[in-house]
Amino acid sequence: MASDLVLYNYWRSSSAYRVRIALNLKGLRYETRAIHLTRDGGEQHSPAYAALNPQELVPTLIDGGLVLTQSPAILEYLEETHPQPPLLPADPAGRARVRALSQAVACDIHPIGNLRVLQAIGKEFGASDEQKAAWMRHWVSIGLRALEIMLANSKHTGHYCHGNTPGMADVCLVPQVYNARRWKVPLGDYPTILRIDAACAALQAFHDATPEQQPDAQPPPSA
Amino acid sequence: MASDLVLYNYWRSSSAYRVRIALNLKGLRYETRAIHLTRDGGEQHSPAYAALNPQELVPTLIDGGLVLTQSPAILEYLEETHPQPPLLPADPAGRARVRALSQAVACDIHPIGNLRVLQAIGKEFGASDEQKAAWMRHWVSIGLRALEIMLANSKHTGHYCHGNTPGMADVCLVPQVYNARRWKVPLGDYPTILRIDAACAALQAFHDATPEQQPDAQPPPSA
Repeated sequence: MASDLVLYNYWRSSSAYRVRIALNLKGLRYETRAIHLTRDGGEQHSPAYAALNPQELVPTLIDGGLVLTQSPAILEYLEETHPQPPLLPADPAGRARVRALSQAVACDIHPIGNLRVLQAIGKEFGASDEQKAAWMRHWVSIGLRALEIMLANSKHTGHYCHGNTPGMADVCLVPQVYNARRWKVPLGDYPTILRIDAACAALQAFHDATPEQQPDAQPPPSA
Repeated sequence: MASDLVLYNYWRSSSAYRVRIALNLKGLRYETRAIHLTRDGGEQHSPAYAALNPQELVPTLIDGGLVLTQSPAILEYLEETHPQPPLLPADPAGRARVRALSQAVACDIHPIGNLRVLQAIGKEFGASDEQKAAWMRHWVSIGLRALEIMLANSKHTGHYCHGNTPGMADVCLVPQVYNARRWKVPLGDYPTILRIDAACAALQAFHDATPEQQPDAQPPPSA
């Protein structure tokens, strides 16, 4: 039987990765449709996809007749429509903390290193591949340094970003750490982040959401 | 009597502007502390402020003993702790729409044109002031074009972004339109956005939150 939930997905998109983890943590079955971000000038720019998502970005989640965009909004929607297990704590102060940690990734790290920004610094300023990688490492490092302080200095940090159950902040952090490794960002200064990332990696919901587990994943180039 | 709410603020920060509008819409009194983003290398980098906000960004909202960062998280916190008047609709589908519109600004337009990114393209790639302005106009235009489609094509758009009462999406949109005007982005192709912006401008809560109304506002350079 077809699932009501369909995720327009790209294996290496951090935003799509967040939604995959959340769907898995909630125990929700979903189908995927691959949107290849660089093939044919970017399948996200096709008229059919742009009609679903005028921003021409992944992910888009279809829930029956509803079209949902923006991964943080999708996470909140899943939390409201499928409250168990919760991705946010019950108290407003805790919820604010988890959302702030999530947005420190989603608003302040991820957007500046997005594919389209890397393409733009190449086109506008002639940035080389090495300069693009340095740009990525700069912003990811600044962001992770702040997150490490926010996590290490709080009594609310537990096995995961907030307490001892995985939640929205972990859902956002883990894809960002994956991305940091991809761009070879040194991570030794962020022991709390690495500890939480390892705790998440041990969970099936996180494992099944990894880029390499997606049907559209591409094998690494052979050595 | 001192207010329990203290906003670390910069008059021209879009993120602080969002929080000011929301506080005003909720009828909440607050004190401000000015954090000048360019004076003395940026007051947001001072040790005292960094201790409050490890990301060294404005705004930070203090509510009694609680330190709140990230403007979208602050908006959600205000909504949960002061539900009236609501900034989000009651239904999950509507809430997802309003959050997606908000994040189309907060995650996909604002971060790429933030002060620190403009400083970085100047430092890393030697971008001139004109190139910085072109960079801003590029990303703001792409973002507003998508928002115009999202707003113009939806039956849920009313006098405001969602229905006939101002909410979270308007709180995010209006500062972005202010920013677009500052950078001289042509706005003629976005009639729905301009109509909503004008409707908001007529409200006292929005007027009182404008950059020019802030105690730390600087007068325009004389001609």
